[in-house]
Amino acid sequence: MAFQYKAPLRDMHFVMHDMLGLESLYQQLPKFQDTNRDLIDSIVEAGAQFCEGELAPINRSGDEEGCQFDNGVVTTPKGFKEAYAKFVELGFASLAADPEHGGQGLPPTVGIAFSEMMGTANWSFGMYPGLSHGAIRTIENHGTTDQKETYLTKLNEGTWSGTMCLTESHAGSDLGIIRTKAEPNADGSYAITGTKIFISAGEHDLTENIVHIVLARLPDAPKGTKGISLFIVPKYMPTADGGVGERNTVACGSIEHKMGIKASATCVINFDSAKGYLIGPPNRGLNCMFTFMNTARIGTAVQGLCAAEGSFQGALEYARDRLAMRALTGPAAPEKEADPIIVHPAVRQLLLTQKAFAEAGRLLCYWMSTQTDIIEGGVADEEAKKAADDLLSFLTPIGKAFLTETGYEAANHGVQVYGGHGFIREWGMEQIVRDTRIALLYEGTTQIQALDLLGRKVLQTQGAMLRNYTKIVHKFCEANKDNADMAQFIAPLAAINKEWGDLTMKIGMKAMQNPNEAGAAAVDYMMYSGYAVFAYLWAWMAKVAQDKIAAGEGDAAFYQAKVKTAQFYFKKLLPRTKAHAEIIEGGVDVLMDLDSEAFAF
Amino acid sequence: MAFQYKAPLRDMHFVMHDMLGLESLYQQLPKFQDTNRDLIDSIVEAGAQFCEGELAPINRSGDEEGCQFDNGVVTTPKGFKEAYAKFVELGFASLAADPEHGGQGLPPTVGIAFSEMMGTANWSFGMYPGLSHGAIRTIENHGTTDQKETYLTKLNEGTWSGTMCLTESHAGSDLGIIRTKAEPNADGSYAITGTKIFISAGEHDLTENIVHIVLARLPDAPKGTKGISLFIVPKYMPTADGGVGERNTVACGSIEHKMGIKASATCVINFDSAKGYLIGPPNRGLNCMFTFMNTARIGTAVQGLCAAEGSFQGALEYARDRLAMRALTGPAAPEKEADPIIVHPAVRQLLLTQKAFAEAGRLLCYWMSTQTDIIEGGVADEEAKKAADDLLSFLTPIGKAFLTETGYEAANHGVQVYGGHGFIREWGMEQIVRDTRIALLYEGTTQIQALDLLGRKVLQTQGAMLRNYTKIVHKFCEANKDNADMAQFIAPLAAINKEWGDLTMKIGMKAMQNPNEAGAAAVDYMMYSGYAVFAYLWAWMAKVAQDKIAAGEGDAAFYQAKVKTAQFYFKKLLPRTKAHAEIIEGGVDVLMDLDSEAFAF
Repeated sequence: MAFQYKAPLRDMHFVMHDMLGLESLYQQLPKFQDTNRDLIDSIVEAGAQFCEGELAPINRSGDEEGCQFDNGVVTTPKGFKEAYAKFVELGFASLAADPEHGGQGLPPTVGIAFSEMMGTANWSFGMYPGLSHGAIRTIENHGTTDQKETYLTKLNEGTWSGTMCLTESHAGSDLGIIRTKAEPNADGSYAITGTKIFISAGEHDLTENIVHIVLARLPDAPKGTKGISLFIVPKYMPTADGGVGERNTVACGSIEHKMGIKASATCVINFDSAKGYLIGPPNRGLNCMFTFMNTARIGTAVQGLCAAEGSFQGALEYARDRLAMRALTGPAAPEKEADPIIVHPAVRQLLLTQKAFAEAGRLLCYWMSTQTDIIEGGVADEEAKKAADDLLSFLTPIGKAFLTETGYEAANHGVQVYGGHGFIREWGMEQIVRDTRIALLYEGTTQIQALDLLGRKVLQTQGAMLRNYTKIVHKFCEANKDNADMAQFIAPLAAINKEWGDLTMKIGMKAMQNPNEAGAAAVDYMMYSGYAVFAYLWAWMAKVAQDKIAAGEGDAAFYQAKVKTAQFYFKKLLPRTKAHAEIIEGGVDVLMDLDSEAFAF
Repeated sequence: MAFQYKAPLRDMHFVMHDMLGLESLYQQLPKFQDTNRDLIDSIVEAGAQFCEGELAPINRSGDEEGCQFDNGVVTTPKGFKEAYAKFVELGFASLAADPEHGGQGLPPTVGIAFSEMMGTANWSFGMYPGLSHGAIRTIENHGTTDQKETYLTKLNEGTWSGTMCLTESHAGSDLGIIRTKAEPNADGSYAITGTKIFISAGEHDLTENIVHIVLARLPDAPKGTKGISLFIVPKYMPTADGGVGERNTVACGSIEHKMGIKASATCVINFDSAKGYLIGPPNRGLNCMFTFMNTARIGTAVQGLCAAEGSFQGALEYARDRLAMRALTGPAAPEKEADPIIVHPAVRQLLLTQKAFAEAGRLLCYWMSTQTDIIEGGVADEEAKKAADDLLSFLTPIGKAFLTETGYEAANHGVQVYGGHGFIREWGMEQIVRDTRIALLYEGTTQIQALDLLGRKVLQTQGAMLRNYTKIVHKFCEANKDNADMAQFIAPLAAINKEWGDLTMKIGMKAMQNPNEAGAAAVDYMMYSGYAVFAYLWAWMAKVAQDKIAAGEGDAAFYQAKVKTAQFYFKKLLPRTKAHAEIIEGGVDVLMDLDSEAFAF
């Protein structure tokens, strides 16, 4: 009875072609010059077929069945093994991977488009290839030639998978206090000992080998974050001929019983003097990881988009079908015993919120991803690369935190539109809530992202990264200031763009007196920033849509809906910034005044 | 590993005695004159022991095991039967029930205090006795003497339980379109035929009989809500000696697989010419139910309070224990490898939000309930009863919708404080999210409550109910306008109280032109109203706390924490009204402009 996922191809085309002009962008990027519109569309089309036909049908059943653990062996739910084999066979594992090591060398944004569809159809499934990404990037960026040759092709083609082993039971956000040890062996390898938790795809039955990237401490390592090194620890030792040899002393101790993403195995992994190989310089492990953190976090931002898109599709279908009450203005479907609930303003508010979040979320993810295209596209212009990198750095914590927060809200709206049926598992709406709840926690919680945004990205650059961004918006406002159709968007957008800077200044001044001021403001500042970014994205979409309508190009109804959704966004969602701004003004004292002992009696 | 529930007795005493002065209130209510403070406290203390000792320990296991269905028979999870027997034996079923029919005749508020503890310890368990309430009130208010004698004592003592059979698969919020039929039998009874869904406690193994109150249509009934009648349909026919006789043709067809409250059986109930007895006048069934809807809905409001309280307890414990990072102002616990996370402003914001919601929610539930005490307390003063009834009517949709929305938010904050561990079932935090998600749906969704508030309670009374309420607040502001310590609360409270009226006026004017304006404003108006009500409750609590501190009475640290939490509320939560007010100003057009077909392409 669960809704049937359909890839939102029309809107994906809008974002990729009308908004971001991927084809002309790629003509300027040496590495991606062959990626034309036809190629992009055909890959996306094939991806849509695979996600709709193979992944969506095993989403509900995967949730019900979950992963099974038996004496170190993890079995994925029915159908996952077959779907994964097809995923590898059809080449979806290697879309954006390096052609030197088995990849197809497509731009990251093409991979993100596929990720969106995969994640909406079946987020749990997507966790398995998704986690390989971190391992691949680590080896690409910091591995020796030997390490690259041994691991990358297998990982890129998907016959092996990877993990990132960071968290320990006492150390999540605070990796500085991890305890896993790495002791040198005589042969130059290391003996890794310790227990990691929350290891997604840590053990499963989809691939012939699993390559763990493990954070651990060398014997002489300094305390804290500056004493952490990275190691490659394969489940089976690779053989010279590219196969797998003897089993390493790394084993899955158990899997977690979770709220959601139940078909994704979340493992406790025990390293018992497991053989590992240092990757990157000693004690610089965290820095090595930061080099690709931004690109990896786009993947989690996508989960927010997926939750918004999936729950919107389900809710819209139900709202058009379900009959209850009459419209307040009189019967809309007098031939039926009641009106479809989409006539009710409160239901429309839920649906339009989902729609506005999904569509701006899509543009944000793909736009962020095009910055990665530019960074990796082999362009000679260092300034352009730097600008892309700065923009991506600034947008990353917003994308990760704001899209997952709004995605979670949208998922809850999906349940709400279904009424009591939303609470029943077979309808599929509550699963989206459960699956996507993790997105606000892993890869750095909302609170951690907020500190990254306000602390590292904004205040530590003396506002430079924010100004770089608001200049883009300012330019847009200037360019459209005489456009009468755009006035409804430009005035509030210019106002929020200015207020954002003023607010930042005020926080910065206060934080110089008391660093807790930044901590107190951070989450509201991040949410404010998210709404401000979405205001620009909606104004930008409205502009492109209006131009298309004026030029008589394409389907006018589609573009008119864009303009109307932008109007909804500015009237019904952007005002939330008012609350966040005033809460920030409320300052830090009311947060810090209460002693820990006085919270409860 | 899940946190251990402790009844928040200190705060319950504050609300019952310092704030509401239950003992002196009851001295003015003839029916409750014997209910003095000692009696209240001893019942609450016994209730706390039962809930902490018997119900909390089977909360996680009940969630994991769930109810089992086998060929019409429903088995509750391990320990539920024994706990229920003890619940009946200790007299908790009959606390506030009518002494003429086996009840202890205590004031409703004493029952609510027990409900809070039961619901926080184990919401699923509380659903079984909770659902009897509706059946009892229906029979009390509308039953014949015979019906009362046959059913009430058994229901009150808890050896039988009751249900409310309203929903059908195509009819939830819109009861006007139900199809279940009632055809007269020769003996004066009726043959009830139809299928009801979402029947909580519809079938289970806790009691020897189940008494269904069923909404159905007589053969000649008018269409819509004016053609619905109420019937008593027992699972087993009562015998003359108070036992149970032959099985009626009513049966459980299946149970739902749900997101949460898994230990509460949610049943499909099939009536196959089941024998039923008309209760109340024909075709007036919905009106009969409305007579006690307000009191019943307090029960659901309590669920919001429970979610806030339970998740706060769990999160506070974790935030004090869990070590991660250092305080931004320097190490707070230098002897440890990191600081407890309660030092971080963002964590405190989550905890204080939970605390502010839980404590104001408690006061709101108990305050609403004292209106029921007054209505049912046998007082002669009809005006006082009318005032209590009006206040209760006005507060009910706010209590139901706002407390469940804020309770859900608080539950999510509980997960967030735990980080990744919040997503793991054994810690118990995600269960609160899943269990309480239903509270926003059943007993009228948030959207339905919002329409009830703005449409029926405010606009249909030309604002009279709102003015009655804002007068209470105005009086409070006047009384404290010269109190320097209260100025920080009185100024914003008076402002919001006035703005609320102005906002209502504006909506009323617009709704006269276009009824959809009310629909468009309703949910934001309800949320705005909730924050406005909480502002009064926090100012009121601060006033009482300040008086206690000034008088040197009681534990100063407790009262100081109240004042500080009030300060937090005014600076960090009340500003959310700014967003709701501006969203309401955004009007209806952006909600209605988009055609149903244009929501997606």
